[in-house]
Amino acid sequence: MNQKQLPQGFRYATVYARIRKVEKDDLALIVSDQPASGAAVFTTNVVKAAPVRLSQQHLKASRGKVSAILINAGNANCATRTGDEVALETCKAVAEALQVPVNQVLPASTGVIGVELDATLITKAVPKLARGLSAKKFGDVAKAIMTTDLVQKIATAEVALSGGVVRIAGTTKGSGMIQPNMATTLGFIMTDAAVPAPLLKALTVLANENSYNRISVDGDTSTNDMLAVLANGASGVKVSGKDMTLFREALGRVAQDLAIQIARDGEGARKLIRIQVTGAPDDAAAAKIARSIANSPLVKTAIAGSDPNWGRIICAAGYSGVDFDPNQVDIALQGTVVCSHGLAVDFSEDELKKHLDESECTIEFVIGGGKRGQAKFWTCDLTEGYIRINGSYRT
Amino acid sequence: MNQKQLPQGFRYATVYARIRKVEKDDLALIVSDQPASGAAVFTTNVVKAAPVRLSQQHLKASRGKVSAILINAGNANCATRTGDEVALETCKAVAEALQVPVNQVLPASTGVIGVELDATLITKAVPKLARGLSAKKFGDVAKAIMTTDLVQKIATAEVALSGGVVRIAGTTKGSGMIQPNMATTLGFIMTDAAVPAPLLKALTVLANENSYNRISVDGDTSTNDMLAVLANGASGVKVSGKDMTLFREALGRVAQDLAIQIARDGEGARKLIRIQVTGAPDDAAAAKIARSIANSPLVKTAIAGSDPNWGRIICAAGYSGVDFDPNQVDIALQGTVVCSHGLAVDFSEDELKKHLDESECTIEFVIGGGKRGQAKFWTCDLTEGYIRINGSYRT
Repeated sequence: MNQKQLPQGFRYATVYARIRKVEKDDLALIVSDQPASGAAVFTTNVVKAAPVRLSQQHLKASRGKVSAILINAGNANCATRTGDEVALETCKAVAEALQVPVNQVLPASTGVIGVELDATLITKAVPKLARGLSAKKFGDVAKAIMTTDLVQKIATAEVALSGGVVRIAGTTKGSGMIQPNMATTLGFIMTDAAVPAPLLKALTVLANENSYNRISVDGDTSTNDMLAVLANGASGVKVSGKDMTLFREALGRVAQDLAIQIARDGEGARKLIRIQVTGAPDDAAAAKIARSIANSPLVKTAIAGSDPNWGRIICAAGYSGVDFDPNQVDIALQGTVVCSHGLAVDFSEDELKKHLDESECTIEFVIGGGKRGQAKFWTCDLTEGYIRINGSYRT
Repeated sequence: MNQKQLPQGFRYATVYARIRKVEKDDLALIVSDQPASGAAVFTTNVVKAAPVRLSQQHLKASRGKVSAILINAGNANCATRTGDEVALETCKAVAEALQVPVNQVLPASTGVIGVELDATLITKAVPKLARGLSAKKFGDVAKAIMTTDLVQKIATAEVALSGGVVRIAGTTKGSGMIQPNMATTLGFIMTDAAVPAPLLKALTVLANENSYNRISVDGDTSTNDMLAVLANGASGVKVSGKDMTLFREALGRVAQDLAIQIARDGEGARKLIRIQVTGAPDDAAAAKIARSIANSPLVKTAIAGSDPNWGRIICAAGYSGVDFDPNQVDIALQGTVVCSHGLAVDFSEDELKKHLDESECTIEFVIGGGKRGQAKFWTCDLTEGYIRINGSYRT
């Protein structure tokens, strides 16, 4: 990663705070040198972790101004007696160290649910974190937030707007929405573009809709999910007028890139599955069908076995809750049509099986009849690895 | 199984018709000597197999009179060019052999989707089937309809009504809603009670709601699912007045027994999981929460690993779509409270782990606050076996 591609005016730091057992940095701090516009989307689970609730409050109280994000791995700070105080105390420590209002600090946590998190592990580490802040440690943050992730996840973009170039950089974590101890999906995207908070909120919701809301590994929605976007304006370039489309697209690409990296790194996954649904009554219906296909253990195991078993795909679409005429459905796997008008088509199974052995598999689900609803969705295959990771006793 | 426990006036036959590759009976016939009242519930999948559609038509045309059910394993007769004709031709063959109206014959199929089913395999075998009919071959039917099932599934009941004793016997199949080639859940329940068709329909819907609609193995709803109940009145005992409750309960028990046998025999399963939700806003909400817990791969793998990881349970409930206060939730595993008011409780993990190694695990999810909605649900653990069965290439 070229340092020049990173947004200006952000600094990063990580440290091992003894929250997780393995000695590996588990506490990360993202700081914007000037208060940034901040927007975030959060889990829709009715069980919300304390840091999720406090981040929501802080964004509201600060009217979308964010100076720092404090992230810990190893403990979700969810369903704990002291969760709210812990989240607040740790934000206060950051606010003091950086001399910023406490409501400009967003907390985020990932890890086991239902285990008390000792706030002093974090508050004691914060001064060291603050001293270690550097514009170059973006990659360290990507590493520190990993749980069962096998690879760190980063995406960047540069966009030439009329006022100059702005940069976008994001990092995320997540592998099964979970790890053996129950973890989460977190995403953080920084940009040095100047974007007013209300606009940033709208752009974040849009970007999230076509990225994080279009992936699944196991269909489990965590209690801690959070995607935060910070725009600090350090580039001096404002996003407005016709630049809006360029910036929206760039932000969308970064979010989508991060989300796809999560699906590809799904627990136990050997293959990324790209699903495309077209011809649904509307985009929401297309997404519903795509999600149903993506969440079907039968489809996911078929892809794991390189089995062009399209019956499972049309079956999963059929129980998605969307009404369609099966006789108008075409299905293609890796570009090979395997079902036309709802019926089997002759194709070389040997050849297609070989293509399905590749590390990326494409499922196209096309409903004829002229309707325009479409959606893309990303998931991964389901292998014994997923069971091994999640079926072993917590230690 | 005691022959005397079987409903009077039914005969059964099975034969190997070369529909499946393995030489194992794959065609079964259930005959009521006098036209029975018949009721059935079918898959809600918009992709419905030809036999499902024809059974629906026949029940309507005959006004709920059924003389025979013809069942084949090895081919779902779904998403095939000739499906409708095949289903009709095979029913005609049975109608001719038994000298009954064709609309009194219900077809049912289970097996691979999208492969043409040769009607002559069945029509040629029907005369032999008809000749072989016997009141004693109920168990043969249970065997012939198995696909990936490891055990045959039968449940019986006797009820003493005011007019005398009536008998109920049912058989079912299903292990993953599917087998490597995609199969289905089928259920057939016979009784010699006299029950008018409209009443039987209502009782069937009720029985189904608390049995087949309360189990899941992998969350995949097949294209061929069907539960049919035949009441031929051969006992001479009518169900009416206060006997209704007795009969309804007995039918419900048989259906539930069969459904639980399916969950217990889930593909790759080592454990039956019994889920009980209480204190939800209403029964439907309780069922929604229970289903969300039952379908969570994280909960299912945790139980496979005997891991009392209740965070995954409250998390799955949290994204069920039902609103509840997490702070009012108690969770018990095998009778041991592991979460009280949404927080961790001290318990002996070693001891509980031992109990979770048993072949049946109970999850109780209790929402405080005085609401009365409750539901029971049954599922199984998720093991490498499921992946092995479904992730191997079709052969």
